[in-house]
Amino acid sequence: MRKGRIEAFSDGVFAIAITLLVLTIPEPRNYHHLTNALTDQWPAYAAYVVSFAVIGIMWLNHHTVFDHFQRIDRNLVYLNLALLATVVLLPYPTRVFGEALQRGEGERVAAVFYSIVMTGNAVAWAGLWLYGSSRRRLLGGDFPEEQRRTATVMFTFGTLIYLATIVVGILNAYVCLAVHGALAVYYALDPLSRWVSRLTE
Amino acid sequence: MRKGRIEAFSDGVFAIAITLLVLTIPEPRNYHHLTNALTDQWPAYAAYVVSFAVIGIMWLNHHTVFDHFQRIDRNLVYLNLALLATVVLLPYPTRVFGEALQRGEGERVAAVFYSIVMTGNAVAWAGLWLYGSSRRRLLGGDFPEEQRRTATVMFTFGTLIYLATIVVGILNAYVCLAVHGALAVYYALDPLSRWVSRLTE
Amino acid sequence: MRKGRIEAFSDGVFAIAITLLVLTIPEPRNYHHLTNALTDQWPAYAAYVVSFAVIGIMWLNHHTVFDHFQRIDRNLVYLNLALLATVVLLPYPTRVFGEALQRGEGERVAAVFYSIVMTGNAVAWAGLWLYGSSRRRLLGGDFPEEQRRTATVMFTFGTLIYLATIVVGILNAYVCLAVHGALAVYYALDPLSRWVSRLTE
Amino acid sequence: MRKGRIEAFSDGVFAIAITLLVLTIPEPRNYHHLTNALTDQWPAYAAYVVSFAVIGIMWLNHHTVFDHFQRIDRNLVYLNLALLATVVLLPYPTRVFGEALQRGEGERVAAVFYSIVMTGNAVAWAGLWLYGSSRRRLLGGDFPEEQRRTATVMFTFGTLIYLATIVVGILNAYVCLAVHGALAVYYALDPLSRWVSRLTE
Repeated sequence: MRKGRIEAFSDGVFAIAITLLVLTIPEPRNYHHLTNALTDQWPAYAAYVVSFAVIGIMWLNHHTVFDHFQRIDRNLVYLNLALLATVVLLPYPTRVFGEALQRGEGERVAAVFYSIVMTGNAVAWAGLWLYGSSRRRLLGGDFPEEQRRTATVMFTFGTLIYLATIVVGILNAYVCLAVHGALAVYYALDPLSRWVSRLTE
Repeated sequence: MRKGRIEAFSDGVFAIAITLLVLTIPEPRNYHHLTNALTDQWPAYAAYVVSFAVIGIMWLNHHTVFDHFQRIDRNLVYLNLALLATVVLLPYPTRVFGEALQRGEGERVAAVFYSIVMTGNAVAWAGLWLYGSSRRRLLGGDFPEEQRRTATVMFTFGTLIYLATIVVGILNAYVCLAVHGALAVYYALDPLSRWVSRLTE
Repeated sequence: MRKGRIEAFSDGVFAIAITLLVLTIPEPRNYHHLTNALTDQWPAYAAYVVSFAVIGIMWLNHHTVFDHFQRIDRNLVYLNLALLATVVLLPYPTRVFGEALQRGEGERVAAVFYSIVMTGNAVAWAGLWLYGSSRRRLLGGDFPEEQRRTATVMFTFGTLIYLATIVVGILNAYVCLAVHGALAVYYALDPLSRWVSRLTE
Repeated sequence: MRKGRIEAFSDGVFAIAITLLVLTIPEPRNYHHLTNALTDQWPAYAAYVVSFAVIGIMWLNHHTVFDHFQRIDRNLVYLNLALLATVVLLPYPTRVFGEALQRGEGERVAAVFYSIVMTGNAVAWAGLWLYGSSRRRLLGGDFPEEQRRTATVMFTFGTLIYLATIVVGILNAYVCLAVHGALAVYYALDPLSRWVSRLTE
């Protein structure tokens, strides 16, 4: 199994999952008052935007991480499949979240459900990184030891942050959705590289 | 992030979004009078054809623009994700448009909705170009300065044209759909290259 | 536009369209008598198999044809988009065909509808070939003139054969589906290469 | 037809089929008691996980097998299409299986149906391997003769194992689903390579 092939397969899955997000927006319920019907489903658009950002930025960071691996092995392929299983699932809680907010029923349950899937995703990320980096198993020789430790802290910390979003979901569904959007933006800033460059100054 | 990878990911998203357009055509309502049921939904076919042309030609022009960028950076990747978010969304207003025209309910609202999404798409295009070209940030050294200015005018102008389609939608939904088809054909003629070659004569 | 890119995009569209065929099989209507519900929808499976063969073999022949083109131009890209528009549409008449046969309502209308879409596909193929091959516009220098004429006859003849399937659909829907399956198998035998090799013996 | 292209097409189909599995999870029936609605559909999640593992690991083994083929021919392409037709179909029995278990209606029929599709898949695998390997038709010269025989036994044996899952399905649907999950894990251990390395010790 060459590295390029697992990356291409992952890219394909990311691209398809992100595109299937459009199916999370439900058919308008009423064409007679279509303006109302379309504006009433703003939560579905909001959930679409957040999940689009989540998957898009995750795709980007997937590359960064795999660029650090000098080689891959069969176990990494399985851990990557587990990660992809959480990515592929994401349109489902996205749909449920948007629908619950629109109906005004079960909003916090939907927020918790979304946060649980995102926590599963964070755990898969941490597992992937820990497997590949512990004892520098798959890392290239020029990957700085300091960066390895920082990244390990970050990925472990990430699972705790996503666990915390479950609590946020119990309290308020709208805040929970906003937090997930904010976390996506945070990861977009490539914190790994920033922290490392600060450390290596 | 290599340029080839962002292009491959974008190609994948374009290919999936264009293929999902088939899901915008609703199940026939009546199999007993199937001929009527199938011909009655001609608006769904028309919306399918227009959106297919829009995405197909946009895919083509995406290549032309990225060929002009000598390199890419992380910001461009985010602007590209924003652009893709509007492309991925397009099957949704396509479906609503076809359905509204077939029902004879909410046609102009659906036309305005479609035009708003297309305007968002035009804004994303303009943002992508302005970011990459202003102060020649990502352009190759051999890209003529004159062409840069022409393209900037065109992309800015494009957002105004799509804003105008919103007004057309308020007036007449059928004309609005035809205008979107005509604009796709116009962009198919590769106006950028034509204008430039006229200027450089 | 490099040839490799248009081929990759087409491959992607073929792969997605063929995979979306699974969505043409409807949810079983009755879980209490699930065996009956599943066997009653054999027409949906039959339509799935025929369309799977049609798209799969078309993907294969797409490569053969593009291998003969030494270069591509913008017009060919548009003709290829028109061809892909008929491929992407195919899951829709497939679904209608299977559903009509299962209900025993509108079978022949559905057969004619399927045949019309396939005829559109054959016309798109003929257009693509005629554009690329007439006056040897895009053909490589080593492509034998004799083969060019044979292929032109075949592609033109193909549109007539698919027109004939419309007539078959008017007469009998089941025969029509079988004929589409048989035609797919016929094209799988790579008739182009066979005819040519017979001619060049 | 180059080998790389058929592999890329197959990769695309695997990636799309695995991503479409998310559509097998039905909309929650009740947003008022959303926690119950979401937990009640645990069979749909279980079926999702099993089929995700099945397709993911099959994708991996597809590479292993094709790496052993030195070249491909047109017949292999058709056998590969037949294999892909069973992969693309898999989301359908997955959905039926999850739904039947959740309803408590038709569970064993659904289990048998799922097992039949998986048996068809195993037959397609055996056909692909037998065609490519018998009389070493497409194998590379350095592929050990002993490994060829072992693999032939394994692929033939695999069809019998999947036939046996049909019997399991007749007896108990839950056990049947678990067996399919266990078989996926078994194939993940790359038995082919292990058996061979044991033999060649």
